[in-house]
Amino acid sequence: MNRSDSITHYLEQTSKRINRELETIFRDDMNIPPSLKKSMEYSLHAGGKRIRPILVLAAVEALNGNVDDALPVSCAVELVHTYSLIHDDLPALDNDDLRRGKPTNHKIYGEAMAIMAGDALLTHAFYQIASMKQKNLPADRLLRIVEELSWFAGPRGMVGGQVADLEGEQGITSLAQLEYIHRHKTGDLIVFSLRAGGHLANADEEQLEALEQFGFAIGLAFQIQDDILDRIGNEEKIGKRLHSDEKQEKVTFPYFLGLEECIRAVKEYTNKGKQAILQAEIPNPERLLELADYLMNRDY
Amino acid sequence: MNRSDSITHYLEQTSKRINRELETIFRDDMNIPPSLKKSMEYSLHAGGKRIRPILVLAAVEALNGNVDDALPVSCAVELVHTYSLIHDDLPALDNDDLRRGKPTNHKIYGEAMAIMAGDALLTHAFYQIASMKQKNLPADRLLRIVEELSWFAGPRGMVGGQVADLEGEQGITSLAQLEYIHRHKTGDLIVFSLRAGGHLANADEEQLEALEQFGFAIGLAFQIQDDILDRIGNEEKIGKRLHSDEKQEKVTFPYFLGLEECIRAVKEYTNKGKQAILQAEIPNPERLLELADYLMNRDY
Repeated sequence: MNRSDSITHYLEQTSKRINRELETIFRDDMNIPPSLKKSMEYSLHAGGKRIRPILVLAAVEALNGNVDDALPVSCAVELVHTYSLIHDDLPALDNDDLRRGKPTNHKIYGEAMAIMAGDALLTHAFYQIASMKQKNLPADRLLRIVEELSWFAGPRGMVGGQVADLEGEQGITSLAQLEYIHRHKTGDLIVFSLRAGGHLANADEEQLEALEQFGFAIGLAFQIQDDILDRIGNEEKIGKRLHSDEKQEKVTFPYFLGLEECIRAVKEYTNKGKQAILQAEIPNPERLLELADYLMNRDY
Repeated sequence: MNRSDSITHYLEQTSKRINRELETIFRDDMNIPPSLKKSMEYSLHAGGKRIRPILVLAAVEALNGNVDDALPVSCAVELVHTYSLIHDDLPALDNDDLRRGKPTNHKIYGEAMAIMAGDALLTHAFYQIASMKQKNLPADRLLRIVEELSWFAGPRGMVGGQVADLEGEQGITSLAQLEYIHRHKTGDLIVFSLRAGGHLANADEEQLEALEQFGFAIGLAFQIQDDILDRIGNEEKIGKRLHSDEKQEKVTFPYFLGLEECIRAVKEYTNKGKQAILQAEIPNPERLLELADYLMNRDY
């Protein structure tokens, strides 16, 4: 197998593992109203790439931690990511009809249910972390993961980024503000994923810092790549309509920098991220480095 | 001071204390987008009675725990309660214009911001518990509080109750289903509040069980009382329009039982709750018992 085969194989196997774990989350004996369960599971199993939970597990692997013990926390990140997409797609926000090639949650279950499904997924993410399924992990580390999830996904994190995004306007928003938007809207949950993997593998502060820098850099690269693909990608592969940013007159990186400069920026941030990992004492960094390259080169 | 003066004084002093703590939650150095902060704080400081955080503190007091250490967790419950009201009032759900005598969140800040303010309040509730402000409390107990909050407020708890409420229909919903709705929609967060107080004061399992039974009973009494007040209360005192249940053709306890039987049920559940506390080894139960009576007799 060459290197690119190996990462494709790894992604396939790992997302299968994550998908299997995700299927066990809402157990029948929890007595969840069937319509709510359906709505949550619709979006949860709508074909996400599982990038964030994979980053959790790859960080664990990089530090020679136990990947099995990390599965519930990795799924918690996917619950948070899924909730944020459901709410983001609502008519009052981005008003998107299509996500990953399928109708968005509110298109099928209605707005009220989409709001509540998002609320329930977010809440249950914390249950995933705190419910002591992770029997081998000490409470103080799990509590720190809870603390960081609420920090990176909350008002000064992901939700803050979403608000700033919503308020962004062409001609008013600066490039610095755009970086703020993406740092929080997309970057914070990616940073959380890597730090969570670090905590699960008992990382020291220097390792956590390297994981954070890596996450910050590839998060920004990821978002710029998304903006590029919205302009020149393949609609079928991406699973949503192109040019949605332009139509909504959104401030994006290509809007400020042009396409060529954006393509250069994706490479630069990716390399910065890889350097952060290489310069720290990370015993087994290969997978993280491969993932950074993979994300840079993706076309969907 | 007679007994009713004493509980009024206690409620006043304790809610002042909670309000002061709530004002410290979203610090300037958190760098939250100003519009989001405004929207969250608007609903947070819109004159709630602080029943749930008071129940947390009263449970701590009943077990001779440290009330100061319990303040951050008590505020977490209020964040969750406030988020649930903001989302519940949205046009897609109850479509309410007025809450506690003031315009609802989305009426002032728009639907998108109201959705995100709710999301941010919910997420930050977990930060309140996990952020180690509670220096004197061991991680395993705080983690258990996180676990129970996500359980009681999540898809099989409060959100589950909201979904069931939304799907309730006159002529179709049974009295048993109505009890399910209220047990989860209102009761679960009240049960959580009491159990959280228990955990904070290092309660044993028998004491936790008594607190839970108390919470379950007064939660149901509370909801039935709410339904009664929606029919025969004073609009000005309650701060929202009367007869909203009838207008929305909602299934309520008076719909099934009639007013007289409802008034009897409030008393019966209140007494059941008090019995649960009196029969357990709770060293200092007076405040909880007074609160149960106070809630039963309230007219707003």
